[in-house]
Amino acid sequence: MVILGIDPGYGIVGFGIIDTSKRDILVDYGVITTPKEDSMPVRLETIDGSLKYLFEKYKPDVVAVEELFYFKNQKTVIQVAQARGVIILACQKYCGNIYEYTPLQIKQALTGNGRAEKAQVQYMVKAILGLSSIPKPDDAADALAVAICHSQTSPMLNINKA
Amino acid sequence: MVILGIDPGYGIVGFGIIDTSKRDILVDYGVITTPKEDSMPVRLETIDGSLKYLFEKYKPDVVAVEELFYFKNQKTVIQVAQARGVIILACQKYCGNIYEYTPLQIKQALTGNGRAEKAQVQYMVKAILGLSSIPKPDDAADALAVAICHSQTSPMLNINKA
Repeated sequence: MVILGIDPGYGIVGFGIIDTSKRDILVDYGVITTPKEDSMPVRLETIDGSLKYLFEKYKPDVVAVEELFYFKNQKTVIQVAQARGVIILACQKYCGNIYEYTPLQIKQALTGNGRAEKAQVQYMVKAILGLSSIPKPDDAADALAVAICHSQTSPMLNINKA
Repeated sequence: MVILGIDPGYGIVGFGIIDTSKRDILVDYGVITTPKEDSMPVRLETIDGSLKYLFEKYKPDVVAVEELFYFKNQKTVIQVAQARGVIILACQKYCGNIYEYTPLQIKQALTGNGRAEKAQVQYMVKAILGLSSIPKPDDAADALAVAICHSQTSPMLNINKA
């Protein structure tokens, strides 16, 4: 099973693809970035187009997306949520099989502790995928963490089906 | 010039189309609704598909979208913003000419008072378009108000260009 993990954002969208056919194996990871100089509609179009490319290239069986939680800055939450809407629509159109996980669920699945530090989660991403170093930037590592979270919790069936 | 006004939402998206070739004339109005029983990805897909239909049918020259402001409920703001992201992307893909207006700008343009009551704005929608009654539901009247706002303020050029 090919899993695409996504860490939603506005300026940076992290993505990570793993293949769980035998065990969790890294396929690709990276970030989609949108230039600050571009208007909001153009930035959303960039995210949509880049995701379409990833879906066509890797044909994931399932997508795992991190849920959006509270922000102190209301303007930021609106912008990130707008991008997240575009991301969820792309997942629906190009794949149709979407699961959502909270940061707590992701930390719990990777480290056994829902309140683990970011560094500990990243260390587990490296360890589980058998990498020589932690994937950079953080957004890509976070996206791989969501994908691994789905791989480890999907036997629990449809609890997080969007 | 054909203007499509949009009042963004998650369960209900209001739309209103006016033609300003001679004076502001009503072309169509209504709402896109998404069933509560549907998953979020499916609801976003419904909004995208319905907007695509409207763009193909009416070929607006420009879209005017109401800006999203503060909510008390953080969950609601995330859901509405996610839908708004999908709406903005559709406007970008199917038209490309997008303007955004705050509730204050809309009230100011229609009534001369940025703090006007909702009923007064609706009364002006009816009066300006020469209708026999106020368009229903409220979301459709709000969308027509955004379209009229653009018609009345567009001589001021690119101030609200998204």
